[in-house]
Amino acid sequence: MMKGKFSAFFEPDSVAIIGASYTPGKPGHEVIRNILANGYKGKLYLVNPKGRELLGLPVQPSIASLPEGIDLAIIILPAKETPQALRKCTEKGIKHFVLSAGGFAEVDEYGAQIQQELIDIIHKKKIRVLGPNTSGHTSTPHQFTSTFFPLGKIRRGKVSYIAQTGNFATHTMKYILTAEHFVVSRVIGLGNKIDIEESEALEYLADDPETSAIIMYLESIKRPRRFLEIARKVTRLKPVVMLKGGSTEAGKNAAVAHTAAMAAEDRIVDGMLRQAGIVRIWDYTHLILTGKALSMVPLPKGNRVSFLAPSGAMLVVLADLCIRLGLEIPELEPETLRRLQEISPPFIRMRNPVDIWAAASRGIEFGYREGMEAVLKDPNIDAVVPVLMLTKDIGVPPFEFIIELVKKFPEKPILITFSGDRQYMEECKEFVEPLGVPTFPEIEQPFEVLSILSRCVRAMNRPSL
Amino acid sequence: MMKGKFSAFFEPDSVAIIGASYTPGKPGHEVIRNILANGYKGKLYLVNPKGRELLGLPVQPSIASLPEGIDLAIIILPAKETPQALRKCTEKGIKHFVLSAGGFAEVDEYGAQIQQELIDIIHKKKIRVLGPNTSGHTSTPHQFTSTFFPLGKIRRGKVSYIAQTGNFATHTMKYILTAEHFVVSRVIGLGNKIDIEESEALEYLADDPETSAIIMYLESIKRPRRFLEIARKVTRLKPVVMLKGGSTEAGKNAAVAHTAAMAAEDRIVDGMLRQAGIVRIWDYTHLILTGKALSMVPLPKGNRVSFLAPSGAMLVVLADLCIRLGLEIPELEPETLRRLQEISPPFIRMRNPVDIWAAASRGIEFGYREGMEAVLKDPNIDAVVPVLMLTKDIGVPPFEFIIELVKKFPEKPILITFSGDRQYMEECKEFVEPLGVPTFPEIEQPFEVLSILSRCVRAMNRPSL
Repeated sequence: MMKGKFSAFFEPDSVAIIGASYTPGKPGHEVIRNILANGYKGKLYLVNPKGRELLGLPVQPSIASLPEGIDLAIIILPAKETPQALRKCTEKGIKHFVLSAGGFAEVDEYGAQIQQELIDIIHKKKIRVLGPNTSGHTSTPHQFTSTFFPLGKIRRGKVSYIAQTGNFATHTMKYILTAEHFVVSRVIGLGNKIDIEESEALEYLADDPETSAIIMYLESIKRPRRFLEIARKVTRLKPVVMLKGGSTEAGKNAAVAHTAAMAAEDRIVDGMLRQAGIVRIWDYTHLILTGKALSMVPLPKGNRVSFLAPSGAMLVVLADLCIRLGLEIPELEPETLRRLQEISPPFIRMRNPVDIWAAASRGIEFGYREGMEAVLKDPNIDAVVPVLMLTKDIGVPPFEFIIELVKKFPEKPILITFSGDRQYMEECKEFVEPLGVPTFPEIEQPFEVLSILSRCVRAMNRPSL
Repeated sequence: MMKGKFSAFFEPDSVAIIGASYTPGKPGHEVIRNILANGYKGKLYLVNPKGRELLGLPVQPSIASLPEGIDLAIIILPAKETPQALRKCTEKGIKHFVLSAGGFAEVDEYGAQIQQELIDIIHKKKIRVLGPNTSGHTSTPHQFTSTFFPLGKIRRGKVSYIAQTGNFATHTMKYILTAEHFVVSRVIGLGNKIDIEESEALEYLADDPETSAIIMYLESIKRPRRFLEIARKVTRLKPVVMLKGGSTEAGKNAAVAHTAAMAAEDRIVDGMLRQAGIVRIWDYTHLILTGKALSMVPLPKGNRVSFLAPSGAMLVVLADLCIRLGLEIPELEPETLRRLQEISPPFIRMRNPVDIWAAASRGIEFGYREGMEAVLKDPNIDAVVPVLMLTKDIGVPPFEFIIELVKKFPEKPILITFSGDRQYMEECKEFVEPLGVPTFPEIEQPFEVLSILSRCVRAMNRPSL
């Protein structure tokens, strides 16, 4: 399939909203606000039988009154009105659609019938459809979104998402936008997948120059062989991380009620993903944290970490954790040890992980800066995690030195975590994250994420079969 | 051993600080500030050769000038001056000590020699010592602490901690006090354990009416047989949760540098803990979150959970997670299903977990309140987790209804988690936590904690051997 076939979805020059609403809070209203908030530069046509004006834009009274050749239509109508609207749009030459309504096969037999009607139209009219039951898609490079959940401006980045759930493009995206500082490229909410499914979505992102890494939430895989084939190629070029919902019987039961898709047997899925170089994860939180890390730090060369804390117990617990996570804690070069020893009390024998006494004995900024620089320089180390102990009484350093170190060692991921006074953790986060340095509130999280990133690197570098 | 033998540590009527300092930030100064901040009601004697006055209290120029019969002395002097001070204190009849300095066996051979000197004094003088290299202990029921790390007032509760690390009583406690709303009873920092070790500490807390649950961080177990014997009894009465540092070779290496203790072989430890009814955990974060939950919610009767979210994907992912964690998602009573169905759109077949459509279709407060009440009433359910989806546009409910439900169902733990806009998550946390309802920022956390709590209950109810 040729490149650019989805440009009508991700780079539309003109978009019609069928079911534009005058009522704030309604999906047919919020989708327009989202499009405007993201600064969409193409033409926007609104359709509502009442006509008039809406958010400063003229409203067409019917699909029939639309001009020919609009790239994409977002149909935000109740399920039972959707097939008719779809037909009418095709009569105006529209070939690409986002179908937002729910109420199809995921709810009942009647919904399943309407869904079949949609499928028949798709086959007859040779159109392409995202959904139904999708919370939409987003394309920050084109300043466009079809999401009807109130999100406002979505920050542009290089990590893209495929989600077989409305939640990702809605509440999770809201969380990302309000709690975290990271950025996204494309987001594809698959919905009920009556036409476009994960294989094509993955293929699009594989070739997409605006996508450097792909994160997926799937509950089922529609064409496993095709999916595998595409995944096998892209995972050598870009990290592909997947959370597979429905890995247990209980989860599967919930999945049936959710997107009308029965999840495949999990062990088969697991082997398949492994073969395809897809890195499987298990927690929804890791979906978010991995996206955050991939959007901010370079991929580590490997799984060799160093971490620094002025607390023996933290070092012990985190060393245990690293081993459980498949991370290596390598020995340091003599030169590195010499430098660490130089800044430390003489009775401490320095090693990796680094008991950063200098943070207490010679000032917190000095200790972390010199300690981090020493291990960042070390050729045995692929990534560095400082556990910043922040309290008012001990002193909170200015955080510029972290940014300076990130600039000085652009090829090595630096992931920050904390202990101590929450206020200063938040201050640090607010300072470093907008400058591209990720922080993690729980001390285990940077290591969990580094483990995922190093599995990505291993998958990318895996030997050919 | 008789009850109350540690009352000089946990309920001292008089305390001497040997090494009181005039310099803010120094341990010998901060320990006094902590004691005053906690409202200690006993007599406080400060010793410093300079005499004069310190924080409004008179200063004795020497140990010799102290009165006879002081309950407890905190010696905050450099390692090499500690044995001499200890000897002098015994001459004044003091029998209980906290030795705060580090610089003993955990650092070098010279330190090990001084440590041996301390051990000799202990044996000769029949005194009891906590430490050395301890960040102190805390007893909120007695409004007392020997911690030198600036903490201020520590909130009183019923969960107690034994920690073979200074970090717990310092940075972690600071985190608990600033980021979380939970409360503690006793905290015992064991340090190098030359006298009081985990067995005696556990025995004390086992009999302590102010302790309803015990949480431990240990890197080694000094007298495993004794420890087992005590643990086996107490774990039938109170939950005992342990994070064991040094479970891997890498962790062990770090542990040697930390408290001079070589961790025992981990598999042996694991079997031993299991036999003793101790619930082992693996993450430092779980140490904190379990403490938070135990200090706020009742123990669940068992492992049967219900959770509510207006997101299919969340339900799927969390159902998978429950199964992995050993939690059950039981079917609901017909009466419960009837009520859930009543508040939901007709096309949704309600089940457990609960797809709480009513939160969207009939208002977020109505949906969660009625949904939570229905599953809380269900005799098949031991604990309930609402995933609150909070965004401004959809509406943020007043959170009183959560408190009302907690009061109405005092025997069932309710653990809150979130998705959506961070600001409202924080607002909810700030409202409900001071009223005793725990919240968890990551959606997996309440389930991880419930899994730990239900393991505690299983351990408490285990059949006798």
